[in-house]
Amino acid sequence: MINFELIKSISMASPTRIVLLVIDGLGGLPNPETGKTELETANTPNLDKLAAEGICGLIDPVSPGITPGSSPGHLALFGYDPVSFNIGRGVLEAIGIDYDLQLGDVAARGNFCTVDKVGLVTDRRAGRISTEKCTELCQLLGDVVIDGVKLFVRPVREHRFVIVFRGEGLASDVSDSDPQQTGVVPRLITALSPEEAKKMASIASQFVAQAKIALAEQHPANMVLLRGFSKRPQFPTMGEIYKLKPAAIASYPMYRGIAKLVGMEVLEAGITIEDEFTTLKKNYTNYDFFFIHIKGTDSAGEDGDFDRKVRVIEEIDNALSKLISIEPDVIVVTGDHSTPALLKGHSWHPVPILLYSKWCRPDRVGEFSESACLFGGLGRFPATQIMLLAMANALKLTKFGA
Amino acid sequence: MINFELIKSISMASPTRIVLLVIDGLGGLPNPETGKTELETANTPNLDKLAAEGICGLIDPVSPGITPGSSPGHLALFGYDPVSFNIGRGVLEAIGIDYDLQLGDVAARGNFCTVDKVGLVTDRRAGRISTEKCTELCQLLGDVVIDGVKLFVRPVREHRFVIVFRGEGLASDVSDSDPQQTGVVPRLITALSPEEAKKMASIASQFVAQAKIALAEQHPANMVLLRGFSKRPQFPTMGEIYKLKPAAIASYPMYRGIAKLVGMEVLEAGITIEDEFTTLKKNYTNYDFFFIHIKGTDSAGEDGDFDRKVRVIEEIDNALSKLISIEPDVIVVTGDHSTPALLKGHSWHPVPILLYSKWCRPDRVGEFSESACLFGGLGRFPATQIMLLAMANALKLTKFGA
Repeated sequence: MINFELIKSISMASPTRIVLLVIDGLGGLPNPETGKTELETANTPNLDKLAAEGICGLIDPVSPGITPGSSPGHLALFGYDPVSFNIGRGVLEAIGIDYDLQLGDVAARGNFCTVDKVGLVTDRRAGRISTEKCTELCQLLGDVVIDGVKLFVRPVREHRFVIVFRGEGLASDVSDSDPQQTGVVPRLITALSPEEAKKMASIASQFVAQAKIALAEQHPANMVLLRGFSKRPQFPTMGEIYKLKPAAIASYPMYRGIAKLVGMEVLEAGITIEDEFTTLKKNYTNYDFFFIHIKGTDSAGEDGDFDRKVRVIEEIDNALSKLISIEPDVIVVTGDHSTPALLKGHSWHPVPILLYSKWCRPDRVGEFSESACLFGGLGRFPATQIMLLAMANALKLTKFGA
Repeated sequence: MINFELIKSISMASPTRIVLLVIDGLGGLPNPETGKTELETANTPNLDKLAAEGICGLIDPVSPGITPGSSPGHLALFGYDPVSFNIGRGVLEAIGIDYDLQLGDVAARGNFCTVDKVGLVTDRRAGRISTEKCTELCQLLGDVVIDGVKLFVRPVREHRFVIVFRGEGLASDVSDSDPQQTGVVPRLITALSPEEAKKMASIASQFVAQAKIALAEQHPANMVLLRGFSKRPQFPTMGEIYKLKPAAIASYPMYRGIAKLVGMEVLEAGITIEDEFTTLKKNYTNYDFFFIHIKGTDSAGEDGDFDRKVRVIEEIDNALSKLISIEPDVIVVTGDHSTPALLKGHSWHPVPILLYSKWCRPDRVGEFSESACLFGGLGRFPATQIMLLAMANALKLTKFGA
């Protein structure tokens, strides 16, 4: 088992550059009519060329059979064991709206919900109220102070919000109020460690009571549910582990947030795929590792839109010429998990990966696809090993042992 | 994860015999002109026949992406997790010259180096002085006694030497004096555990001071640098773990030394590849496990000599008839790591392996090569599992659990 201490002892800074292109939800399932997945359907001359000249394989983000969320999926790609390195739900929501969490803050994910006259939850999402309405209700709940602790309530999207608690002596191990079902009353928020978390449980409970009163006249959003109380984790940074100077190019806040947690600098990404590659080109000499995140494939997969996912992949392939033209020493293309349009959601299926470098041992794979990658020289392996392979191919790892 | 206790509980002595042939640095990278690696270029009818009748695969000595030194590479082949079972640099150098380290001895690797008038290191290798000069200087430094501790200074090759400290109460956790760079003074040797290592740090420091005086008039080797202070580790032996009576046939001292550390008996190997197989034949009835080490492939790879590596592989293949004719129950052929001539050094690429026995489940691989092994029945797996496979095929492991 390779740990960070070992990697630290053999990693070294060097002028070579690594680009990790993450096509969110890349892996798919075959369209029953054609027998081809989204990636296999797309016309991808650039990806196929990289696959033919490089080495391919399949990764398991967490483990065979496990469907990863975006956060474990990405942590694994950066070499962090996604089971030990955990980001709480509240923190994820906060970084997802670019909220500047401070050390010691406790964040929780909130839902506006609907309760009936006797207080039973009838809709956990309050009919998915508009983001405008959510913003208005967050302002109504206001930034308040309870027992000396500051509370910040911020809208996310539709019925979702974030609440951040800032003050002395706050522990995050308190239970959720969200019962995850309808027909019951919201749960009491209780301290899971009786002494340490007593204060946090009390303040969160007081907030819920205040919110109930403040929202009493609203409809359908007349109550709140909280879950995933958590603190910003302190992970060892990629700079410490790999001696890299890493940068993130991602147009969605959550991925920028995860990148920040592992010590990447976040660059202004722009909106389109083309924008992201322009950002890469502009900043290419200032960093030696680039994480580029493309969201459109996952969104299309989640919408069950097979054809749109195909089109996004083709758009990426087209923009790739820009990446290839700057000739990075190592290019890795993969995804954080599969999102087959057929399943309309993340899935457990392994994800195709290609690694292109001067020093890879090429295999016989001639195209970038799930079925071709199955016979690739990288074999099937845990995503947490990708960084080691990328570092090795960039000649940034010295020999282990004499 | 299979541990030694489990293996001990199922291993049993039996009359079957295993031969593990280690072709050092076996794996390679394709010659850009032909697209074939060293092994793929070589004409190897015997290896191909064994591959065709046996089962093939690829091993990762330490982990994908990790380039192993010879010591972790070999420990993994013998089933010892190379991250937990560590051999210090000083000990490795000592066993590399067949120095008979006793338990409690502390060994360090020394370099003769050049310092300028104010003591800054200008060449960490003293212009790579000849081995003759090194021998002469080691005699000049002499076997001395400091504070009751005996010091033995022994030449290795060129600027390299070994120093062994023998006496009561010596701990090995002291810092290196070798600064690993030029333009600075050698570092002070300090105790890393203040109490236990105080004596060792003091004696090593006194030795360095004496050496400085003794070498003052020499040029370019006018100073010494020490590093890798370590004690001979006490590993569980292969006899204890596998109930084997193992023997080593290796013409290079370091590999004999590692073999001794895991409890093998070291046989007189001779010089040539042919000699090694003659030794095997002569001793065949006295042991039930043979580790045969061939160095030439690694040396050629490190020299960047693609053609010589091909020739050494062909020479091995030729000598193999001798091995095949004695019909061992299990033959395993692999390497401790890859040494592609293109990289002129050890590398992280997985290593081809073939296992031949009456009881293997043959695959469709018809030749022994990196690209063919990719499709072998053994798949890609950690080198630490080789011994289990060899033992199983020799019918030396009973059922686990009822």
